[in-house]
Amino acid sequence: MRLINDVKHVIEAQQLSRRFLDNTLFPLADEEGLRFVRRDFHKPLTGKEMVSLFVGESTRTRARFEIAMRRLGGEVVFSTEAGDKFSSIAKGESIPDTITIFDEYGVDVIVLRSQNKGDALLAAGVSSIPIINAGDGPGQHPTQALLDAYTIRRYRKEGIDGVATAFIGDVQGGRTVHSLAYILGKYEGVKIYFVSPEDRRIGPNITDYLKEHGVEYHETNDVREIASKVDVFYQTRTQVNLGTSTWDRSDPNHGYTIIDQSVLATAKSDAIIMHPLPCLGEINRREVDDDPRAVYIKTRGERVSQVRCGLFVTSALLQIILSA
Amino acid sequence: MRLINDVKHVIEAQQLSRRFLDNTLFPLADEEGLRFVRRDFHKPLTGKEMVSLFVGESTRTRARFEIAMRRLGGEVVFSTEAGDKFSSIAKGESIPDTITIFDEYGVDVIVLRSQNKGDALLAAGVSSIPIINAGDGPGQHPTQALLDAYTIRRYRKEGIDGVATAFIGDVQGGRTVHSLAYILGKYEGVKIYFVSPEDRRIGPNITDYLKEHGVEYHETNDVREIASKVDVFYQTRTQVNLGTSTWDRSDPNHGYTIIDQSVLATAKSDAIIMHPLPCLGEINRREVDDDPRAVYIKTRGERVSQVRCGLFVTSALLQIILSA
Amino acid sequence: MRLINDVKHVIEAQQLSRRFLDNTLFPLADEEGLRFVRRDFHKPLTGKEMVSLFVGESTRTRARFEIAMRRLGGEVVFSTEAGDKFSSIAKGESIPDTITIFDEYGVDVIVLRSQNKGDALLAAGVSSIPIINAGDGPGQHPTQALLDAYTIRRYRKEGIDGVATAFIGDVQGGRTVHSLAYILGKYEGVKIYFVSPEDRRIGPNITDYLKEHGVEYHETNDVREIASKVDVFYQTRTQVNLGTSTWDRSDPNHGYTIIDQSVLATAKSDAIIMHPLPCLGEINRREVDDDPRAVYIKTRGERVSQVRCGLFVTSALLQIILSA
Repeated sequence: MRLINDVKHVIEAQQLSRRFLDNTLFPLADEEGLRFVRRDFHKPLTGKEMVSLFVGESTRTRARFEIAMRRLGGEVVFSTEAGDKFSSIAKGESIPDTITIFDEYGVDVIVLRSQNKGDALLAAGVSSIPIINAGDGPGQHPTQALLDAYTIRRYRKEGIDGVATAFIGDVQGGRTVHSLAYILGKYEGVKIYFVSPEDRRIGPNITDYLKEHGVEYHETNDVREIASKVDVFYQTRTQVNLGTSTWDRSDPNHGYTIIDQSVLATAKSDAIIMHPLPCLGEINRREVDDDPRAVYIKTRGERVSQVRCGLFVTSALLQIILSA
Repeated sequence: MRLINDVKHVIEAQQLSRRFLDNTLFPLADEEGLRFVRRDFHKPLTGKEMVSLFVGESTRTRARFEIAMRRLGGEVVFSTEAGDKFSSIAKGESIPDTITIFDEYGVDVIVLRSQNKGDALLAAGVSSIPIINAGDGPGQHPTQALLDAYTIRRYRKEGIDGVATAFIGDVQGGRTVHSLAYILGKYEGVKIYFVSPEDRRIGPNITDYLKEHGVEYHETNDVREIASKVDVFYQTRTQVNLGTSTWDRSDPNHGYTIIDQSVLATAKSDAIIMHPLPCLGEINRREVDDDPRAVYIKTRGERVSQVRCGLFVTSALLQIILSA
Repeated sequence: MRLINDVKHVIEAQQLSRRFLDNTLFPLADEEGLRFVRRDFHKPLTGKEMVSLFVGESTRTRARFEIAMRRLGGEVVFSTEAGDKFSSIAKGESIPDTITIFDEYGVDVIVLRSQNKGDALLAAGVSSIPIINAGDGPGQHPTQALLDAYTIRRYRKEGIDGVATAFIGDVQGGRTVHSLAYILGKYEGVKIYFVSPEDRRIGPNITDYLKEHGVEYHETNDVREIASKVDVFYQTRTQVNLGTSTWDRSDPNHGYTIIDQSVLATAKSDAIIMHPLPCLGEINRREVDDDPRAVYIKTRGERVSQVRCGLFVTSALLQIILSA
């Protein structure tokens, strides 16, 4: 947890320690998973109040926070999906002022999806209650990284240490890639393959961090070349809606950055295929959805999907943040 | 109920049997009506979770589902009115993927208002929980038809058999007309008058269905001609917001497709005037609102409005769908 | 309270008597303030249902009503922030019809933020349940005036009688200025200074009212001239989003209509600085925020901010309106 003025905030992936993930967050998420299966929900957050401040196109994240909060007995006392209406751009109100108002109203936690990088940190700077960054424009999306890391751990008995992950697609523009890379860097023996078109290569902010943490990484533009070495395929979408990509798949230098049968054919039998969603054409759904290695949205049998892992991690996180 | 993979969905009006309406849904709606009058709400849906996924301009329908659910003790764990933000158009996510995510989150029912015909069926195809179609673009709006049919039954001791209904306005484009016509076709001795401008005549998908079910129907462009024979005037608005109509009332071939004093003058004393709302100029409100036959929005004395009938039917439907 | 057909509505500031404010509303708001500090919330509105109908850009007001209602044990059974979707403009439905529908659904109170002056009165005219005007376009915003008046009373042991208030900014276009001026006019010995650019002077609807109630008022375009005589600085923003202002601060005839260190320097030590928010550049936040006289958003120590006063008044108002 990042403490600012003695309050626990979730602002960026780097702030979260390996110890916190392994010893506190993930075990609690496991417990939440068991409760989910038994549909035996407890109500540890009775009396607690959450505010959801979101800008558009964020259905999935807003939903997992609001559903988790309510199942835990807490209340969502205010929710907006048209957050651009309260932002500095549309209305002239600054993020700190908006946050201060909800703080003054006496709520217990604010989940904030905003438009500009750094908004969550600005918010935390003035807040006496926890701020959870649910995506600050092109900045970070740390709770996505938490659910991603938890999904990996759930599928590896040996834990995250030593995992080989391929990030595929627009690795330069994808904030979920960055946030997860920061978390992987905290583990031992981790390998990362960045698979992207030439002009969407990962940036130095990430590679410098990886070097510093001794993480082995490689870059390529063809996922088939490295498919047999990978434990986790993390496919991302083109970040068109974040305004960060202009690349054209028909461009020959684009390489091979999708998941389909040809990739599955050489992948390990115990690999998993993840995606932060929404998924467009970058996974061949007809060929991949029914493969047991596909865990991004729905799984066969007993396996737990990445989507559901997200709910468990969110439930765990809210409890940790809102406990005294 | 339409069973798809053993789950009860409400996708289109045709799926609903006369027996289900008469023996199950309507009696339960009557009970809900009694509870409403006594303000004696029970809580049979405690612990059940609804998700409302709506595109814009759907206040009335979203409201009756959310209010009914909460009064029954259930929870609305997530609600969006900007559903176009999650649709395939704005975000690139398919309806099945969006539905799968909420299914994975473990909620109990999804009420879906979407933009494209067939979306509800697509949704049901992937869902392990019930989908209620709250309008799929120019497709159907089956729960509107249920509330319409219930309103008719409530005003006819003899039941829906033998009722003569005039559908007035853009009968070609109005999805509520289509859905209700499908339901009426399941009853005996029913007559239908389609009153519309020449170029907004009812389409063969409906007339073929009526012929097949032995329903007598007539077409005209002047409601005054048939007003004395009608039990139910079902006035509809021009479906401008669905993009299906371009007709011009000043066009002489338009005929007479509004309700006013001249229509009331020849109508039966026990006829009723209905409208799915919102109501623009197609009913002369000043002349008609205070007539005891007007039940579309508010009624004098003991009579129950079509709006309120909608709430009762919705309450009944949610109980049926969410009971084990 | 304004009684229309025996129902208590809050439509405009003029309707509210001094006796009601001093003897009923404000003491109850004080009680709510004490409960807030102790976080000892009671649930007098259990079983009561509120509907929030809002057009965009109204986060703060919608939030204080919804949070207050929920803390009092009531339910927000329906909420829309895209109210322009239900308004006569976008959908063709009139305000009275929209209100009638919620009335028919049997809810207990409607909070309405609408686009056109007079909408709240129209709404009350057809409603059997209370309507609270949360701003009717360029019309009034009476609950803002209540929270403003309560804030003043909270900081003056001697009460509102005799208070000298400076309204600063676009006093012609600011509906919060108008509503509060109407309330101040009900007290004795009150003085008002209107500080505005020449072309944004207060209109005759207000000045006539003040003359009639024997309120002393002055007009100027330089706040520094009158700063030493003022108990309450009420700074307002340029009402750009209400489409009522075109003035340009660089215009020399604009005068001096902001609060900064130069104003603080001559202001009384027990003056207070208020603002209805959101606050743009019209207060020099860096110079003013930390001054103990600044109460608009957050305060040092024990003092209660105007924002929080708004919550207390809203809680009190809902209880009064929803009590039998």
